[in-house]
Amino acid sequence: MKTLRSYICGRWHEATSGFAPLVDPSTEEVLAQASSEGIDFGAVLDYARDHGGPALRALTFAQRGALLKDMSKVLRDHRDELLDLSRQNNGTTKGDGSFDVDGASGTLAYYAALSKSLGDRHSLPEGDGVQLAKTDGFWAQHILVPRRGVAVHVNAFNFPAWGFGEKAACALLAGMPVITKPATATALTTERCIELIVAAGILPEGALQLIIGSTGDLLDRLGPQDVMAFTGSADTARKLRNRPSLLAANTRVNVEADSLNAAVLGPDVDPVEGSATFGLFLKDVVREITQKTGQKCTAVRRILVPSDRIAAVQDALISRLGAVVTGNPADAGVTMGPLATAQQLRDAEEGVAELARTARIVHGSGKRSGAKGFFFAPTLLRADDARQAGAVHEREVFGPVATLLPYDASAAAASEIVALGGGILVTSVYSDDAGWVGEFLAHGGGAAGRVYVGSESSAADAPGSGAALPQALHGGPGRAGGGEELGGLVGVKLYLQRVAVQGSKALVNEVAGVSA
Amino acid sequence: MKTLRSYICGRWHEATSGFAPLVDPSTEEVLAQASSEGIDFGAVLDYARDHGGPALRALTFAQRGALLKDMSKVLRDHRDELLDLSRQNNGTTKGDGSFDVDGASGTLAYYAALSKSLGDRHSLPEGDGVQLAKTDGFWAQHILVPRRGVAVHVNAFNFPAWGFGEKAACALLAGMPVITKPATATALTTERCIELIVAAGILPEGALQLIIGSTGDLLDRLGPQDVMAFTGSADTARKLRNRPSLLAANTRVNVEADSLNAAVLGPDVDPVEGSATFGLFLKDVVREITQKTGQKCTAVRRILVPSDRIAAVQDALISRLGAVVTGNPADAGVTMGPLATAQQLRDAEEGVAELARTARIVHGSGKRSGAKGFFFAPTLLRADDARQAGAVHEREVFGPVATLLPYDASAAAASEIVALGGGILVTSVYSDDAGWVGEFLAHGGGAAGRVYVGSESSAADAPGSGAALPQALHGGPGRAGGGEELGGLVGVKLYLQRVAVQGSKALVNEVAGVSA
Repeated sequence: MKTLRSYICGRWHEATSGFAPLVDPSTEEVLAQASSEGIDFGAVLDYARDHGGPALRALTFAQRGALLKDMSKVLRDHRDELLDLSRQNNGTTKGDGSFDVDGASGTLAYYAALSKSLGDRHSLPEGDGVQLAKTDGFWAQHILVPRRGVAVHVNAFNFPAWGFGEKAACALLAGMPVITKPATATALTTERCIELIVAAGILPEGALQLIIGSTGDLLDRLGPQDVMAFTGSADTARKLRNRPSLLAANTRVNVEADSLNAAVLGPDVDPVEGSATFGLFLKDVVREITQKTGQKCTAVRRILVPSDRIAAVQDALISRLGAVVTGNPADAGVTMGPLATAQQLRDAEEGVAELARTARIVHGSGKRSGAKGFFFAPTLLRADDARQAGAVHEREVFGPVATLLPYDASAAAASEIVALGGGILVTSVYSDDAGWVGEFLAHGGGAAGRVYVGSESSAADAPGSGAALPQALHGGPGRAGGGEELGGLVGVKLYLQRVAVQGSKALVNEVAGVSA
Repeated sequence: MKTLRSYICGRWHEATSGFAPLVDPSTEEVLAQASSEGIDFGAVLDYARDHGGPALRALTFAQRGALLKDMSKVLRDHRDELLDLSRQNNGTTKGDGSFDVDGASGTLAYYAALSKSLGDRHSLPEGDGVQLAKTDGFWAQHILVPRRGVAVHVNAFNFPAWGFGEKAACALLAGMPVITKPATATALTTERCIELIVAAGILPEGALQLIIGSTGDLLDRLGPQDVMAFTGSADTARKLRNRPSLLAANTRVNVEADSLNAAVLGPDVDPVEGSATFGLFLKDVVREITQKTGQKCTAVRRILVPSDRIAAVQDALISRLGAVVTGNPADAGVTMGPLATAQQLRDAEEGVAELARTARIVHGSGKRSGAKGFFFAPTLLRADDARQAGAVHEREVFGPVATLLPYDASAAAASEIVALGGGILVTSVYSDDAGWVGEFLAHGGGAAGRVYVGSESSAADAPGSGAALPQALHGGPGRAGGGEELGGLVGVKLYLQRVAVQGSKALVNEVAGVSA
């Protein structure tokens, strides 16, 4: 059996015990095994601090961007192989795999391009300098400098390529060495990504290390200049935040956690064939329920529809969801693969049972499909009192599951119901009435880190609310974790320290590298 | 005896039990008493959410700025009275009191002025919009919107006016209602500030509430849209971060905590009379040890000097520190008042005893002066092995206490020693050699949120490293709390939610209020 390896201290480490299996979720066949036993995590951190950090900081932003471009290229050059690994280990269709794999190479390429605008600099000026006295003898300029620590990335099972790539792009561009840790159960694709990047000799030694398996005492060794970025469940996030060592060192922690994302159909949109906006709504919502079998933190979990249209919308959604073919992505005609693991399947079944206490199932069963493989067909629920829907606003069922909720057509009511989710990644709003959308934004914009507006004018181009594009913020308040990734420079700043440099204007400009 | 009141739910609340005393630290005379007993904290939060929040959000940034201007004016108009309260309750000299009181009115005035550039808007666009598809049918624009919760401000005893003012300025400008809680022991000045602002009828009801005394279950009632900003000890900060309710709701928390700030004398500066840079160093360092009796989070705690000059620097500092007159600020000729409380006096004595394990006292006693009043004369220590100085890099002694540390004249060594503080608010560097300062910044800039460069060219204008001016970031990584206050808009963003608005360019620009 294939044994996955970790890449640490400039070499590949293969454990000899403590293995966990990696499974094909379509067949339940064991594909590989992985373990981090035998790794000295202190040495891994030292290697990053002593080799990777200095080597990256010696480069300029533009030079680091050039490394990202090479990383992107090597992933793109092996796209078919990575898609195949994704199908095997994540059970993804080709489209779903490409959402992950092309997402990784695309995000790396985006940050490579962005780096050109940052230039051949070792620190970034932020904003204009400001005079602080009557003369220019006292002046201030904010700059951003690389944090002198290690970026530890703990990623979720659903994006083995993109999760690695989007986090690593920002940290490496900032000048911080990365230790990346994929979810063990789906690490096949990540291991191959790192293997390709290492074999191509792109990065300085120590700039990128990979740990597959438990992180041991790694997190207890982090300090004040380190950054820990986590994507996963709110429960695990809470435990991480609570970790005495991280609290004591006040390590910077970024969290992307549960998100009860909402799609809102505006009252101006008629649920009829021929309405471009309603067509976009249907296409988007069905995609955001079923893409990657609903295993996206940006998937739509709640669908708000004006009360008088909910029956029509329900019919239209059921008709589309009914056309989804669940099965092994290796088989022709299959449009949706299995859930990624047995645990995810159990969680999804338990989750629907919980939702069914305050909502009723109107399509699908909320149960496993078939006896072999972790298949779970699309399941649509409906709660008739949106404000009393309890778990619908609290339990993220990580599968192809969403709940219809009626509202009274007012922007205020819609935003209040969306806010019951306690902070989410994305709200999608479908309307051609800019006044109504503006009112929704004023009331409820702050409940999400991103508001996606679907309209007739965007219908031809919009990629759906689930795409976390590198140009736009990915992260939401409250239950969603309060983190901030991507969004152009926003995500890079997680790995930079903001410093106000004060002194005479001439000296400040000289040391900050700003032309007067 | 005077009983301090809280201002809640549109009225003044006077408790009838559970009182703590407020004392004049020069005379130990009890000045007043305070208690928050009888306050329904759920009602206080509801009042902010139901009245203050909507009223503030109905105003534009520029309109909210106008309120700050009025707040600034009412404090300035009562400056003498506030300075007198500060002297009574904080034991401040007139200069030290003005650092706090004028700091408050000045920061409010600064944000009032800044608001004009933000304009008559309800949300702020951030950066330029970006095209996300081949046509402008899909576009993104980041905007910043007020968080729809409450800003709870827990302030430290040393800045009863500025601590209130600098936090409230940013939150109110952002459109968030404030509940401010000063340290009970020195709340006399804060209570009067709020009384003046309330009497002047400046703010909408619910925009500003005051709690003097325990916060009861207030912090357990915070949610995902609320913000908690805390200034105080790292220990208390850790307990706050650890609070299950704040973790569960993922309330946004900003911390300003301990900081072992360092002053570094560059190797190019001769420690002789006639050197403007050395003169600035001496003036600054002595001020940063003694101002407010060393009770500033930005005070200098560590003084790094090239080994071959440390004896000369020590002599020069002792000569200046010896001229400080410690006593009751009401008495003529006194240049430094007492510590603020009996507890602070005990902590300072214990702290110096801890430092004295790895350093030796070269000036002062590290003990109380006199039998009455919390007086504590300037104390200078010296450790001959900077890297083995243990507590010198870890224990913030919150009084007029600093430790001399030698280094080998290299920028790399200086920055390594500074970094032993585990993250600080401000490093001051005294040098006229831009190359050396640039090297220091490259190595060690990120260990602090602010780097203050003292040089011949700034000697006439520089206010000292301890001044947290509103234009420049106040906050540091690691032990310093990892928070970000002030710094112009940076501090306002704590109270805003960043939202990426996506859709067709025309619709995004319309709802985001951006002209095409």
